[in-house]
Amino acid sequence: MDLSFVTDKLNAGLAGLAYGDQPTSLYEPIRYIMSLGGKRIRPVLTLLGAHLFTDELDAIVKPALATEVFHNFTLLHDDLMDQAPLRRGQATVHEKWNPNVAILSGDVMLVRAYELLFDVPGPLLAPLLRRFSQTAAEVCEGQQWDMHFETQSDVSIAQYLDMIRLKTAVLLGFALELGARLGGSSEEDADHLRQFGVDIGLAFQLRDDLLDVYGDAATFGKRVGGDILADKKTYLLLTAQAQASSAQRAVLARHIGQPVPDEDAKIEAVRAIYDELEIRPQTEALINDYFLDALQHLERVAAPETRKKPLHQLALQLLEREQ
Amino acid sequence: MDLSFVTDKLNAGLAGLAYGDQPTSLYEPIRYIMSLGGKRIRPVLTLLGAHLFTDELDAIVKPALATEVFHNFTLLHDDLMDQAPLRRGQATVHEKWNPNVAILSGDVMLVRAYELLFDVPGPLLAPLLRRFSQTAAEVCEGQQWDMHFETQSDVSIAQYLDMIRLKTAVLLGFALELGARLGGSSEEDADHLRQFGVDIGLAFQLRDDLLDVYGDAATFGKRVGGDILADKKTYLLLTAQAQASSAQRAVLARHIGQPVPDEDAKIEAVRAIYDELEIRPQTEALINDYFLDALQHLERVAAPETRKKPLHQLALQLLEREQ
Repeated sequence: MDLSFVTDKLNAGLAGLAYGDQPTSLYEPIRYIMSLGGKRIRPVLTLLGAHLFTDELDAIVKPALATEVFHNFTLLHDDLMDQAPLRRGQATVHEKWNPNVAILSGDVMLVRAYELLFDVPGPLLAPLLRRFSQTAAEVCEGQQWDMHFETQSDVSIAQYLDMIRLKTAVLLGFALELGARLGGSSEEDADHLRQFGVDIGLAFQLRDDLLDVYGDAATFGKRVGGDILADKKTYLLLTAQAQASSAQRAVLARHIGQPVPDEDAKIEAVRAIYDELEIRPQTEALINDYFLDALQHLERVAAPETRKKPLHQLALQLLEREQ
Repeated sequence: MDLSFVTDKLNAGLAGLAYGDQPTSLYEPIRYIMSLGGKRIRPVLTLLGAHLFTDELDAIVKPALATEVFHNFTLLHDDLMDQAPLRRGQATVHEKWNPNVAILSGDVMLVRAYELLFDVPGPLLAPLLRRFSQTAAEVCEGQQWDMHFETQSDVSIAQYLDMIRLKTAVLLGFALELGARLGGSSEEDADHLRQFGVDIGLAFQLRDDLLDVYGDAATFGKRVGGDILADKKTYLLLTAQAQASSAQRAVLARHIGQPVPDEDAKIEAVRAIYDELEIRPQTEALINDYFLDALQHLERVAAPETRKKPLHQLALQLLEREQ
């Protein structure tokens, strides 16, 4: 799928962003994390959302980049809170500089993300800023739940799904809503696109949980089984714990939250329980539910089918599904 | 001076602010730091700035509180970066909860500060948001310079004054500018009020530096001599280092940045150099310069003298000057 009609504009826009100058220890980390790359999926969604309704994308590039700067702000602070050493294979900001620089550079990134929205035309400015702020607070709520779940013993599947909705999905939804409104959509169409984005975000995160256990080591990019080793309460583990027999529950309890003498053995044992309980097809079914729900929302949007094609294809690609 | 016509409105507004609900570990720290009190000087300035031009203050309370929420956000993150155990005599958020909670609650506070500005009427919304963002970035720059100076050996007096301008003064200036514009002032009057606020902020910070060395232990609230003990590069120390004879410079070098066997002896030795160099009257003269400059800006504002009286008196009170 050729998305160069939006990615060329976004790359030029990104290259032109000036975050600030002095002190360099405040602004250099911002340029650094923004330069680490990534798929720029959020601003791509914004421009594709706008393109459903208009050909005039140039004025939408800057507000579209607000979602990318905001996303990278969350990565910067999350990496610090999670004490992650690497981001996209490079040293994280708190490692390359120090924790205080990571706090303060992140703060300024949040300010800069807001600034990118201030060119939004008058009547849309206040409502879209409100939606952006609501989304930003929700993303923080998601991160707080995620950290909270690490030490909470009784996380429900519903709580987990709500956490990934807040931490990951709502920002994809907002990116699409933003683009739709700036492209001139009705509120109703913008809301369908928002829900399309939220569904895709949920499906994408669940697929990530799944790949962590069943992915191809050659292409996954992270260690397969990493979530199991880290005792991460993913959809797979929570579902297994909810459905396990008492014998299976005993096996899980012997591995989860316990010292790990043999990492491969732990991964194998937990994966065996997942297999017995058919966690993989259950997860795939839920991903499929979200995907179909997403498509239904996209279908309801009053825009030409040819214009919807890139969003449809991007969703397929994100979820690595067949055409 | 009776400021109850603004403080009553602000206290009611503060009591009515809803920061968020779940997770409580995200929102409870916000309610906590906002409840620790303080003089609420920034929103007071906003309302007094507006009152120069209008009697209709009710709609200005919410945007005025944006400056207070923002200020407390900076305290929360600064206390974490400075590893301060206490804020207004109570445990800081990172001590009472943990550093990650302090990071994330602070992030949400910045979002909430922006939200309080979104009711600003249409034509003023974008320009005031831009000014707020610029101010917010400058406050972060000031904090970064302040941290940077701790390990930088050659800080100039001009750099120090610029740091306190960014870290402290520009937000007081913005608070006044915001009030003026919301009260219906011209851009020119708003700018004079902004400069009045910046001057008062600079004078206030210099007075704080002075009190740290020459204050009355009974009323100062912090340990007199604390800046000297901490080797803090204040206006007093930087001026002394710039003006010291080689003998005086040797005495300073023996105490500043060295192990401290006797704290009182260190404070006495450095204060003796300050006395010899007449640092106190020099600092008082600079405070006076800023104060007179502030008054000139206030004078130029096209508003009734009776309405300026509270601002004039508040400035006198902040600087603890005679009428």
